[in-house]
Amino acid sequence: MQTFFVQIKCELGRTYEVAEALADQERHSEIYSTAGDYDLIVKYHVDDGVDLGQFVGRHVHSVEGVRDTYTLITFKAF
Amino acid sequence: MQTFFVQIKCELGRTYEVAEALADQERHSEIYSTAGDYDLIVKYHVDDGVDLGQFVGRHVHSVEGVRDTYTLITFKAF
Amino acid sequence: MQTFFVQIKCELGRTYEVAEALADQERHSEIYSTAGDYDLIVKYHVDDGVDLGQFVGRHVHSVEGVRDTYTLITFKAF
Amino acid sequence: MQTFFVQIKCELGRTYEVAEALADQERHSEIYSTAGDYDLIVKYHVDDGVDLGQFVGRHVHSVEGVRDTYTLITFKAF
Amino acid sequence: MQTFFVQIKCELGRTYEVAEALADQERHSEIYSTAGDYDLIVKYHVDDGVDLGQFVGRHVHSVEGVRDTYTLITFKAF
Amino acid sequence: MQTFFVQIKCELGRTYEVAEALADQERHSEIYSTAGDYDLIVKYHVDDGVDLGQFVGRHVHSVEGVRDTYTLITFKAF
Amino acid sequence: MQTFFVQIKCELGRTYEVAEALADQERHSEIYSTAGDYDLIVKYHVDDGVDLGQFVGRHVHSVEGVRDTYTLITFKAF
Amino acid sequence: MQTFFVQIKCELGRTYEVAEALADQERHSEIYSTAGDYDLIVKYHVDDGVDLGQFVGRHVHSVEGVRDTYTLITFKAF
Amino acid sequence: MQTFFVQIKCELGRTYEVAEALADQERHSEIYSTAGDYDLIVKYHVDDGVDLGQFVGRHVHSVEGVRDTYTLITFKAF
Amino acid sequence: MQTFFVQIKCELGRTYEVAEALADQERHSEIYSTAGDYDLIVKYHVDDGVDLGQFVGRHVHSVEGVRDTYTLITFKAF
Repeated sequence: MQTFFVQIKCELGRTYEVAEALADQERHSEIYSTAGDYDLIVKYHVDDGVDLGQFVGRHVHSVEGVRDTYTLITFKAF
Repeated sequence: MQTFFVQIKCELGRTYEVAEALADQERHSEIYSTAGDYDLIVKYHVDDGVDLGQFVGRHVHSVEGVRDTYTLITFKAF
Repeated sequence: MQTFFVQIKCELGRTYEVAEALADQERHSEIYSTAGDYDLIVKYHVDDGVDLGQFVGRHVHSVEGVRDTYTLITFKAF
Repeated sequence: MQTFFVQIKCELGRTYEVAEALADQERHSEIYSTAGDYDLIVKYHVDDGVDLGQFVGRHVHSVEGVRDTYTLITFKAF
Repeated sequence: MQTFFVQIKCELGRTYEVAEALADQERHSEIYSTAGDYDLIVKYHVDDGVDLGQFVGRHVHSVEGVRDTYTLITFKAF
Repeated sequence: MQTFFVQIKCELGRTYEVAEALADQERHSEIYSTAGDYDLIVKYHVDDGVDLGQFVGRHVHSVEGVRDTYTLITFKAF
Repeated sequence: MQTFFVQIKCELGRTYEVAEALADQERHSEIYSTAGDYDLIVKYHVDDGVDLGQFVGRHVHSVEGVRDTYTLITFKAF
Repeated sequence: MQTFFVQIKCELGRTYEVAEALADQERHSEIYSTAGDYDLIVKYHVDDGVDLGQFVGRHVHSVEGVRDTYTLITFKAF
Repeated sequence: MQTFFVQIKCELGRTYEVAEALADQERHSEIYSTAGDYDLIVKYHVDDGVDLGQFVGRHVHSVEGVRDTYTLITFKAF
Repeated sequence: MQTFFVQIKCELGRTYEVAEALADQERHSEIYSTAGDYDLIVKYHVDDGVDLGQFVGRHVHSVEGVRDTYTLITFKAF
């Protein structure tokens, strides 16, 4: 399995709308709204073969209200 | 419970040493080594009353090899 | 109670309009116009149960003239 | 009276030591430890005649463990 | 008296138009066009009671061609 | 196979020394000296099971003259 | 031959569309989708006489969905 | 004589169009397309009395396709 | 005459020491301590023939407690 | 021939020392001290076969007082 995080900057005032849309997809393992430079952090566990770039493009960038994203790849869990 | 993440920039070549030291403390819920501006992301679940600033100072900043940290507070899980 | 600050960058020339709109809501504890990268700093005291992300989205991002915000979570008062 | 904030980045692991040293001076009106780029935010109310630059140099920069500061001047309270 | 500087980033090619509009207001003490990140630096001397935030909003942000500003508060003249 | 790039900022004047040390390890697929914010870009192809964080820590951060690195993970080759 | 990389930031959700358009041109030697600040990294080998600035303008900037690019010139392969 | 450089960020794909428009003005001493954060660097020699801010506003900012500029003043030639 | 500003970042707690040392040189026209990224702003009027780079190196960089400087060249006074 | 620029940040107060040392090498075509983020800009014309990375490492990074450099590659002269 691949674990990765996507930090999401949302259009002003649409953070919770974006979070709920992502949650409805039921692809995530966790979604939190956060303080700081980004508004949301989403954790995904996906099969090894999955192309993460395409996954983010297809399932995150396509959500209304998403302004920018930063994909955080994990190497190893301790 | 409070959930928060701490992103950690380590001294060059000491990422895994820091990760193991944190893991040995057994306070974390997850620790991953990551690509990008930071080397580790650690997720903590702690009781509501805990002072997160003190927690990070006492249990993360005190670990040898930690160079800088960024605490990511979560508001709500979706 | 939770104490947090919201720093607000306003559309050019609308700082005082935004400040007054926030003041009219009477949810704040203090609002100051400031020099530097942001135009306003607002301090809030809210109940422990309140979701700060939603609070900011609903009561700050919804105000006309707000361009960007940075939420500053406090851990402990000395 | 002049109101201003000083955001303080502390040496790793010394945030609470710095906060207590500032608190002991009893010049502040509020001190909070915070998440984000800075570790502390201190609010001061001082007489109009006070030179804020000198005040910060004398009473904040002189405290052991302070690494960098950003002074946030307020114009008006709403 | 309060002395402060306002650094102004202008819309491309409108620096001199903005400078002349500010000069016509005759509120400034000095205006220079500059190299670097900003296009103009304006020095103001105003009475102690003046709210600098409102002053900048009313007299600088209102000028056509102003894109962004940074207010530089002075503490003491040597 | 996993393909990833490591951009390397070297200590002043040691770029070629670092490049040769990396080349001598014969783990790379390509190494180039580059203009811009980093001095070298190294491309690696490694087996799927390899922990890239550990790989970089062990084989890149350990090289004398390396000052900072940025690991660029690839998702898909087109 | 000249070797250089072009890192490409794409409009939200159009990374794979851009990658395929570049691939169809068959001028590249490698194209990868990546994590981090840019979405794609493209490697080109071109004849010594080629003007790289014009090449990027003509063949990369002209592709629909490209938002910004950073050209990474290589000096030497090790 | 005054020597100064103007670094120019152009709208995507318009670098060579801007360069040729500047070249046609025949005010420059050298124009190069470059890699990195800016797309062009132009060197000018002008009489001592010339107001460089006005010169750039009038002759560079007025060119179609220019997005941003940074003026680099020289003090002394060695 | 040439007018230029030098913004100065001082070592922690030495701003006033630096300001007084510069004032003692009596080369300045104005010196202010300031809030924001820099601690001091100094305005100089010098003869046209003066090499500003050398002037700053000789008279500002040589002062104990100066950490970094940014020279702001003016083109025209309005 | 290859034309490229090297922008140089010098240790505080050593700009002219660095410039003279570079000038003494007589490899440059032009050297200017400059305002802004860097202290010097040096233009070089070298044969096509020269490895610019090695050239900068050997002839610029080796000069006492050089703190950091940014190599600006040119593509085409207009």
